[in-house]
Amino acid sequence: MADETRYELYYWPSIQGRGEFIRLALEAAAAPYVDVARLPEDQGGGVAALKKMMQGEHAGLLPLAPPILKLGHVVLAQTNNILGFIAPRLGLIDDDEVSRAYANQLALTIADLANEAHDTHHPIGVSLYYEDQKAEASRRAADFIEHRMPKFLGYFERVLERGDRKHLVGKDLSYVDLSMFQLLSGLNYAFPRAYERQAAKIPLLVGLREAVALHPRIASYLASPRRIPFNEHGLFRRYPELDLKG
Amino acid sequence: MADETRYELYYWPSIQGRGEFIRLALEAAAAPYVDVARLPEDQGGGVAALKKMMQGEHAGLLPLAPPILKLGHVVLAQTNNILGFIAPRLGLIDDDEVSRAYANQLALTIADLANEAHDTHHPIGVSLYYEDQKAEASRRAADFIEHRMPKFLGYFERVLERGDRKHLVGKDLSYVDLSMFQLLSGLNYAFPRAYERQAAKIPLLVGLREAVALHPRIASYLASPRRIPFNEHGLFRRYPELDLKG
Repeated sequence: MADETRYELYYWPSIQGRGEFIRLALEAAAAPYVDVARLPEDQGGGVAALKKMMQGEHAGLLPLAPPILKLGHVVLAQTNNILGFIAPRLGLIDDDEVSRAYANQLALTIADLANEAHDTHHPIGVSLYYEDQKAEASRRAADFIEHRMPKFLGYFERVLERGDRKHLVGKDLSYVDLSMFQLLSGLNYAFPRAYERQAAKIPLLVGLREAVALHPRIASYLASPRRIPFNEHGLFRRYPELDLKG
Repeated sequence: MADETRYELYYWPSIQGRGEFIRLALEAAAAPYVDVARLPEDQGGGVAALKKMMQGEHAGLLPLAPPILKLGHVVLAQTNNILGFIAPRLGLIDDDEVSRAYANQLALTIADLANEAHDTHHPIGVSLYYEDQKAEASRRAADFIEHRMPKFLGYFERVLERGDRKHLVGKDLSYVDLSMFQLLSGLNYAFPRAYERQAAKIPLLVGLREAVALHPRIASYLASPRRIPFNEHGLFRRYPELDLKG
């Protein structure tokens, strides 16, 4: 019998990647969840469990790629689709249509910049290694640092200025704030020099990032083995040659 | 006084771009709407009207980029956020949470492939001309045609096979079908040879595209001056050197 209250996350077990946006929401809400592929295979976990789910043996809509979330009989993919579905249940956004749409607008924009950060190390194709597209990566990363990071982060800073200065939507912690924490943490990891230069211009975002890191449940999560460290297999990768020159 | 029933779309007046996904939904539903930037400036239109909206002189959330949709006092950005908000009102998706999430999952996946099609001509950065990134574009387009188009379109074909074979979600025309029509039309425009090769493997998608084109309101729209032709300023651009070699 399907458990209607337990969240099952299916995502690559060795990276933060796009799954991390969902892990942060589940952790902040202290939701009952299982990060299935991080369980041992003999407990029904591992990459095998993820691949089985991707093959669509469940009823309902086929997923193309992880993250995948299962709640009872509902199986959903696409990071921000999952977040938009679970956030009202988790108390991480007000459950009215306009609040949800505002949150979704910002979350999709956060995902756009995260995707562009990914494409700095894979500007030609995900089927190729970074080493096979280093020249193009160098050009794209320079454009990203010069134009895209300032444009997007400047925009989010203005959103905070127009709001309560502490939350991107409404007056309480939402999943959008958690996703912004992850975006800023990832940019700081991947491009420490460029991030430092940018941070001076986005004091409210820097404040938001610090506040999320100090949230008791998030602080506890970040200090736990459940938080996979950043590495060079995820969305945000530290290749010093792609960062701002010192 | 704000008109609560008239949809105002703010988008670049000379391209289909991301705005076209919204135009198709409004047209299919015969919704009362104004494509504001396509009105003359002396009637409050033009790019000036779009830029004013982007500066956030309205209350509510600031947009980063068009398309922007205004309905009464609600101003929203991000293509699939707008579509998810208006589609239940337009009868283009069932108004239950799971139907909406399934549609959103597919619509976001359509947007992912559309974004990758865009990046074939702009793999390094949108701040640069195509002519300044032609070598990289050639590499990325080859990867797109070889790996990405088949992967995504094969996935959508399987979704149709698992459903009623005519609709991506449910049993009636939804905004997801309209967006798929636009995606396939754009790929056919940008990569006619690659599309032709692919089309042989996706008969249900090809059938869906034809059915949408024959929908009376869509057929009427496509034949009208309201449908801007594809051109080399939008998401999908025909640069023969990026297509499959003949």
